[in-house]
Amino acid sequence: MKLGVLGCGRIASLHVPNILSIPGLEISWILDNNADQINSLKENFYLEDVQSYGTSDLDSLLDDNTLNGVVILSSTNTHTDYTCRALKKGKAVFVEKPAGESVEDIELCYSTAQQNNTPLLTGYNRRFDPTFSSLQKSFHAGDIGDPVFIKLTSRDCPRPSLDFLKNCDTSGCSLLSDMGIHDIDTLVWLTKAEQPESVFVQSHAHDKVMNKMGVDDALMMMVKYKSGLIASIDLVRDSVYGYDIRVEIFGSGGMLSGDPQREVSLRTDQAGRCNTSSLLYSFNQRFNQAYRNEIEHFIRCIEGTEQPLITAQESVLTAKIIEKGLESWRNKTVAYF
Amino acid sequence: MKLGVLGCGRIASLHVPNILSIPGLEISWILDNNADQINSLKENFYLEDVQSYGTSDLDSLLDDNTLNGVVILSSTNTHTDYTCRALKKGKAVFVEKPAGESVEDIELCYSTAQQNNTPLLTGYNRRFDPTFSSLQKSFHAGDIGDPVFIKLTSRDCPRPSLDFLKNCDTSGCSLLSDMGIHDIDTLVWLTKAEQPESVFVQSHAHDKVMNKMGVDDALMMMVKYKSGLIASIDLVRDSVYGYDIRVEIFGSGGMLSGDPQREVSLRTDQAGRCNTSSLLYSFNQRFNQAYRNEIEHFIRCIEGTEQPLITAQESVLTAKIIEKGLESWRNKTVAYF
Amino acid sequence: MKLGVLGCGRIASLHVPNILSIPGLEISWILDNNADQINSLKENFYLEDVQSYGTSDLDSLLDDNTLNGVVILSSTNTHTDYTCRALKKGKAVFVEKPAGESVEDIELCYSTAQQNNTPLLTGYNRRFDPTFSSLQKSFHAGDIGDPVFIKLTSRDCPRPSLDFLKNCDTSGCSLLSDMGIHDIDTLVWLTKAEQPESVFVQSHAHDKVMNKMGVDDALMMMVKYKSGLIASIDLVRDSVYGYDIRVEIFGSGGMLSGDPQREVSLRTDQAGRCNTSSLLYSFNQRFNQAYRNEIEHFIRCIEGTEQPLITAQESVLTAKIIEKGLESWRNKTVAYF
Amino acid sequence: MKLGVLGCGRIASLHVPNILSIPGLEISWILDNNADQINSLKENFYLEDVQSYGTSDLDSLLDDNTLNGVVILSSTNTHTDYTCRALKKGKAVFVEKPAGESVEDIELCYSTAQQNNTPLLTGYNRRFDPTFSSLQKSFHAGDIGDPVFIKLTSRDCPRPSLDFLKNCDTSGCSLLSDMGIHDIDTLVWLTKAEQPESVFVQSHAHDKVMNKMGVDDALMMMVKYKSGLIASIDLVRDSVYGYDIRVEIFGSGGMLSGDPQREVSLRTDQAGRCNTSSLLYSFNQRFNQAYRNEIEHFIRCIEGTEQPLITAQESVLTAKIIEKGLESWRNKTVAYF
Repeated sequence: MKLGVLGCGRIASLHVPNILSIPGLEISWILDNNADQINSLKENFYLEDVQSYGTSDLDSLLDDNTLNGVVILSSTNTHTDYTCRALKKGKAVFVEKPAGESVEDIELCYSTAQQNNTPLLTGYNRRFDPTFSSLQKSFHAGDIGDPVFIKLTSRDCPRPSLDFLKNCDTSGCSLLSDMGIHDIDTLVWLTKAEQPESVFVQSHAHDKVMNKMGVDDALMMMVKYKSGLIASIDLVRDSVYGYDIRVEIFGSGGMLSGDPQREVSLRTDQAGRCNTSSLLYSFNQRFNQAYRNEIEHFIRCIEGTEQPLITAQESVLTAKIIEKGLESWRNKTVAYF
Repeated sequence: MKLGVLGCGRIASLHVPNILSIPGLEISWILDNNADQINSLKENFYLEDVQSYGTSDLDSLLDDNTLNGVVILSSTNTHTDYTCRALKKGKAVFVEKPAGESVEDIELCYSTAQQNNTPLLTGYNRRFDPTFSSLQKSFHAGDIGDPVFIKLTSRDCPRPSLDFLKNCDTSGCSLLSDMGIHDIDTLVWLTKAEQPESVFVQSHAHDKVMNKMGVDDALMMMVKYKSGLIASIDLVRDSVYGYDIRVEIFGSGGMLSGDPQREVSLRTDQAGRCNTSSLLYSFNQRFNQAYRNEIEHFIRCIEGTEQPLITAQESVLTAKIIEKGLESWRNKTVAYF
Repeated sequence: MKLGVLGCGRIASLHVPNILSIPGLEISWILDNNADQINSLKENFYLEDVQSYGTSDLDSLLDDNTLNGVVILSSTNTHTDYTCRALKKGKAVFVEKPAGESVEDIELCYSTAQQNNTPLLTGYNRRFDPTFSSLQKSFHAGDIGDPVFIKLTSRDCPRPSLDFLKNCDTSGCSLLSDMGIHDIDTLVWLTKAEQPESVFVQSHAHDKVMNKMGVDDALMMMVKYKSGLIASIDLVRDSVYGYDIRVEIFGSGGMLSGDPQREVSLRTDQAGRCNTSSLLYSFNQRFNQAYRNEIEHFIRCIEGTEQPLITAQESVLTAKIIEKGLESWRNKTVAYF
Repeated sequence: MKLGVLGCGRIASLHVPNILSIPGLEISWILDNNADQINSLKENFYLEDVQSYGTSDLDSLLDDNTLNGVVILSSTNTHTDYTCRALKKGKAVFVEKPAGESVEDIELCYSTAQQNNTPLLTGYNRRFDPTFSSLQKSFHAGDIGDPVFIKLTSRDCPRPSLDFLKNCDTSGCSLLSDMGIHDIDTLVWLTKAEQPESVFVQSHAHDKVMNKMGVDDALMMMVKYKSGLIASIDLVRDSVYGYDIRVEIFGSGGMLSGDPQREVSLRTDQAGRCNTSSLLYSFNQRFNQAYRNEIEHFIRCIEGTEQPLITAQESVLTAKIIEKGLESWRNKTVAYF
């Protein structure tokens, strides 16, 4: 099976080794307008024999009949355009989250996929994490009855660069739109795309530099559903003790807790205290297995043995909840659906 | 040392065995207008030799010079009256939380204590729990830097009787005023009585009977401070897996987690799963040590070697936050201070 | 119910507060030839009103018809004598482990109990610890199938005084006979008094002072049964990180692990590490509940509602295994039954 | 860098995907006399383009100047021959444990490596496991003082086939020589190749079929050192709850515990119990990272930036301890060094 890779930056460094390690899967070409990023990717992963191109070559590359799909890892504002162009040429698409910057763009991607009867997979990594996945299965199997609270936590480590934080999106609150998007996707997944009643957001910029820039680094969101379910999401940019991604569901029949993992399972008992290891350091350690599972699921979608785990309806609802969250964040009050 | 006990109901069954088990501490008398409760308490704890009285005898009992203090365990609406009467007679007072049903009543109790230079201790049990207490010490010692999030959880087990739930207070939301009061006290304690900016409450009645009665059984509250700190409290009346009381503080330098305890420390590893024991069942298991510590602290307050751990300012702020929480709960919107 | 207490030393300080805290239970008298120990016990537990005696008064005290039983907490070499004298007078006996210094003495105690049809309870604390007790119930219910390994650990904290270690028994290896006796009792309990095939002991004196005194401070014992079961016991006198008492059973159907408990359930996550609290410090913290359960079980044995949990056969086998262990320890080779 | 792979069976399936996933590392050829195993390996890992050979071609393949090293994954009785032939041709050797079936063979391998100044790495996987490795670093840094007990556990899952168990070695006790070898290597590593004083082994065949075959499935070994250190190793062939590999060191200054890992970090709290996930199922899950680290370390040994982590002295001592263990196992008594 042959895939093309669009975008050779930070996210490509994450997915490319997984693609390479899957027996029988091949990278046909890589594409980026930035020659430095292309060279760096080639060097890091010994891709001397792989052809590289710029974006102007995309359409002719998509005409290649031996190409099975594309993996879109470029900046978010290019996602919808690339996705639709590839789908129209009948190529399966894996696109990093989100498929577009607006509800409309996301809807466009999915309707294009449907019209062309071609698989489109958006890369929400929680779906493919073994712990989150076990929790979802158990919850949907009814193991803890009806949900009362869902509590989600995402705490980034290390703190992204100020440059990234300033530029990663145009919403004004990247904490919510770029980072909380994973928690909202999880919420949408767990609730089977139930429509919320309202959302409420509180946030703050603790870091002095970020405070001056007007960029928040801590945020809490409360989401209320008609069924009575109340969800909370807490997000923070700078968790010194490691990458802390958690989910807890309290239900009428019990509680499910998906805890973060630690680097090693070593305990040191000494007088007056016991030390254990720190949490996994960052997303590439924590979601290493998820990224690989994601690609394997994409392959099976191309082969037709599985349907993309993230649906159009889910992707659209995630975008809508973010919009309402941003509305609450801007207006400092409850936003209703 | 000699104490009188006012109120012989459910809460008395909790404190009386602790008082009896402290060497050198004696119960002078017990007082209640309900003869059944008096008899039941006497029988359960072998108090045949202890004199019992009705409320009309209180003033003369307080004249006894050998009496060191009173322990007020009667219904909340009597707390302020009994507290002030005892303090005016120079008797140290331990009163179950809260000292009064309004900010004014609580202020009255504490000003009376000050005027009479007599110790007044309100019984907030989290303060005396070894885990909560260790967490507070570590936090105030600066171990995790400045606070960003404080997350509090109180989930009751077993569900109180409907009769209790209907009658336990007059606020309309006993979940907040009777149960969440402990979490709010914890918050006040941890923040050194910092004044919040705003609170926001969402709630629901999941249980059908409670839903009909209009009594909520699940509630989440968000509290925002000017410093940027955001706190959440989640409360529920019916936790099937045991009594789940937790606190987590995320700060600039790390995270403190005060986890609930389990009944025994037994693990069973079997094919496909591992079982551990359930959480401690209810408040009397979980706060058993706290209740004892509370009484011992009260004794040291009478002896003058310690000052009451809960201050007037803290008790008053706790009452104010509850009032704002109820305002948000009634109006379904953010309430500001 | 009325009990007499024989022996007012260290072990009495452990049991007396539990006896006092049980409603309806009374201490008739305390007895010791050492006036200092009597006075200290009286002072610590406010026993001004309790009569005290010397050992010469014992027989007349045992003639008291209102006395239900005696609690024997004196030095081990007096256990058999006091136990038999009390049983012959029809008084129920709780005696600290072991009932005697030899197999013959223990047999004498139990036959005397049987002849006088009077309850005799030997105080092996593991039997009454909630974690050990849950493990035993689960194991005997067949939850993990047939046993393959039983691994027991006892690590003392703080290290007992050299004076105690020199004098606590006459076997030459108090580590085994005074401390390991609890693990051997556990093994006897779990195996339903199965007779072992052989035992093998290795030991060492790590501490320089103890090494000079010829007293070992670390020991490992392997016990083999005809059924194939192999058990190990590791014992140490000086565990700096707290009192570590553990049991693990590996069976054909799974594993049961009874882990030690920690002081509080607080976690501190920081950059590069996570701290949790240390283990409970010593036996009085760890077995506090067990000591209370022991006395309550003794009361129910007197009332006739329960049979003593530790049987004659078990007590005798424990003594025999210790004798074989000492034989292996002296001869540095395997000892067979 | 180019490697040849000798042996295409079960162990090859473990190492080949790791070799393939390391960027810049290439498999020059694979070699086995069994065509089925060659074809199966080719198919599973898409090695159509890789040449395959039989053992008669080995010498000419070793003459290839572009070949950097060989990875020997054939049956144990071929290890010494292949290792020495490759080393003599100046090829670096990674050989699965052990390098030979006797102390003499192992010494021959290492002396050949030294004479040819060529790296030889024996694949003891515990050395490369992150948890074991952290424990070793902490222990050798003195974090817990001087060792008193080292307790090692290896419990296999699933039970190997009877066919494998009958044929995996000629010692009579493969449990010790094929499986316990890893624990003994760990012991040698942790003690810096300290020579023991004595070993003692007890074992049993619980499984009826294995019992008939005379093959033990459970074994416990005690190793005593002159320093006073006592080590225990417990081994079992059939652990139904997963692959349980553990190490604990008790020292004068504390305890280090390297615990096994679980499949996911999900907890389910329900009435009366809490479930967590089972242990990792088998060696390929547990030592997945270790196998990869092993190969990466081998590459750095070829590059000359690291020295093989397992020394000649260590490999030889491991073999000697196994020999003494087998002596104790045969004679049912203590074996001395």
